[in-house]
Amino acid sequence: MTEPTLDIVAIGNAIVDVISQAEDSFLAEEGLNKGSMQLLFTTEEAEALYAKMGPGVEASGGSAANTIAGIGALGGKTGFIGQVADDELGDVFRHDITALGVKFDTAARSGEPATARCLILVTPDGERTMNTFLGASQHLPASALDHELIESAAILYLEGYLWDPEEPRAAMDKAIDIARNAGRKVAFTLSDGFCVDRHRNGFLKLIEDGRIDILFANEDEIKSLQQTEDFDEAVEKTAARVPTLVVTRSEKGAIAVKDGERAEVAAEPIDRMVDATGAGDQFAAGFLHGQAQDKSVADSLAMGAVCAAEVIQHYGPRPEADTKALIAKRLG
Amino acid sequence: MTEPTLDIVAIGNAIVDVISQAEDSFLAEEGLNKGSMQLLFTTEEAEALYAKMGPGVEASGGSAANTIAGIGALGGKTGFIGQVADDELGDVFRHDITALGVKFDTAARSGEPATARCLILVTPDGERTMNTFLGASQHLPASALDHELIESAAILYLEGYLWDPEEPRAAMDKAIDIARNAGRKVAFTLSDGFCVDRHRNGFLKLIEDGRIDILFANEDEIKSLQQTEDFDEAVEKTAARVPTLVVTRSEKGAIAVKDGERAEVAAEPIDRMVDATGAGDQFAAGFLHGQAQDKSVADSLAMGAVCAAEVIQHYGPRPEADTKALIAKRLG
Repeated sequence: MTEPTLDIVAIGNAIVDVISQAEDSFLAEEGLNKGSMQLLFTTEEAEALYAKMGPGVEASGGSAANTIAGIGALGGKTGFIGQVADDELGDVFRHDITALGVKFDTAARSGEPATARCLILVTPDGERTMNTFLGASQHLPASALDHELIESAAILYLEGYLWDPEEPRAAMDKAIDIARNAGRKVAFTLSDGFCVDRHRNGFLKLIEDGRIDILFANEDEIKSLQQTEDFDEAVEKTAARVPTLVVTRSEKGAIAVKDGERAEVAAEPIDRMVDATGAGDQFAAGFLHGQAQDKSVADSLAMGAVCAAEVIQHYGPRPEADTKALIAKRLG
Repeated sequence: MTEPTLDIVAIGNAIVDVISQAEDSFLAEEGLNKGSMQLLFTTEEAEALYAKMGPGVEASGGSAANTIAGIGALGGKTGFIGQVADDELGDVFRHDITALGVKFDTAARSGEPATARCLILVTPDGERTMNTFLGASQHLPASALDHELIESAAILYLEGYLWDPEEPRAAMDKAIDIARNAGRKVAFTLSDGFCVDRHRNGFLKLIEDGRIDILFANEDEIKSLQQTEDFDEAVEKTAARVPTLVVTRSEKGAIAVKDGERAEVAAEPIDRMVDATGAGDQFAAGFLHGQAQDKSVADSLAMGAVCAAEVIQHYGPRPEADTKALIAKRLG
């Protein structure tokens, strides 16, 4: 087996975020579930919500893409696989991820639908409510997978969100096989509590079949996965089935259980919560970069906490400050 | 003569900004003039610079459009005239300005070139260096002017930047006639020192011909206009020719001379300069809104200072905080 030349390759939605401020009353009027992600299935639905929103700022997003961008900012060697359309937002997505040194070769898809966009409403408490039009992103075919790229990375990272549409689900399934056959590790994020509701059996089967080495979840997601309100029970049940489990808990920090051993980290202190978008994604970036650098689980958790704290103190889902320097300072 | 139903209508470039962090060394390598605006004349030039830039954030911009957006955020009744293309960035521009309640009816232009974009490099000191691809914006024809809209506003506001391309220059010339024939006032910003270099005679002729009632400039621009290094001399010479002159001086505040009487305001204290983009535009927003509300020149200057201070403390050229509340607090 050859040594990996990249640290992490991710497969995820290739999305441009449209970030806008909104009052809680607007969420109520629109019947939106605060803090969650809902799918917009048609261009009409997406345009109708966009028309009602306030002015926005556009920034490249996508959960796994944010994580990969974060790892790129930390100096990790990374690649990304995801489907954009041959349009302006597709160009923006490609520019931003490659500008961070991420290898991204998935060809743009011509014609409709357009590049995916996520309409993000940030309420005054900094919480984000996401409304995703998957667009071209839902048409990532298994044939677009770059086998060599996947085989070249120590870890393959996948997002649960991409389990919704059929083509990318099949592509991720195949990618897991490619990675495992090459002796690589597979990391997976459950993405969202409602997403777990939609795909609980599929996610549990992945875990049962031993196809996931590192599982990321937050409190909602892990409880939804095990269908219990008891957090410790959910963690215990899940940790028994995956080599490494990482659970983020917002202001309560995060825990990890690796081969039965539990580690914890407190949340990093912050000045002000501005926009929660990207918190989980950047936690995963810090943790995965730590693991790729053979750091301890405790240090990897601390790296995740630093990256999450940075991203929630400004608008946008990817780091703006020098997270590498922040981590160096934190780890001493 | 009928009473105006709108406060301010502006004609300006319809631009989407791409804001990216850059080191001073990058500006040096690319031969860019820090703090100024340069034009990118071809799609190839724009793409070449974009490819070298770091990851960006997209936000609706354009100097006069930012001012109008700022006035909209303050609750002013406004309209905008500018040319976008029939593409994704054009949709973004239209969404953002109409979401603020600004009347914007200029039809999108089909085919090439695309909607204008401005590649903005923000250096660690918060200074912004702008590289503008005018795209569709340079094709605003005089035939696109909505005469009734112009006649309905107390003040017509124009940006010097739009003097560069031929079609919009002719359109603005005609718009001044429409406004003056309806008994409205005309405000004009000199935009940029190099822009003044390119159009000194044209700008001086507008002033000499008495077609401008309120002139906005910064120190560079006013000195360039009068071709002197002596700031006071430049102000004196110019103030003798326009009813109201407003000159912004960054951290030194701003002055105004109205009918020979001089007023001054200090810069508002800020926590941290993040991104200078939009400082002059938002100063103009505060000042013009004050004038439309029949505030004194001193109060209008203070309103400008509050709006400028808000916008330089975050990325992006338009207000994020509640500037109306900030002004109410400042004026007591």
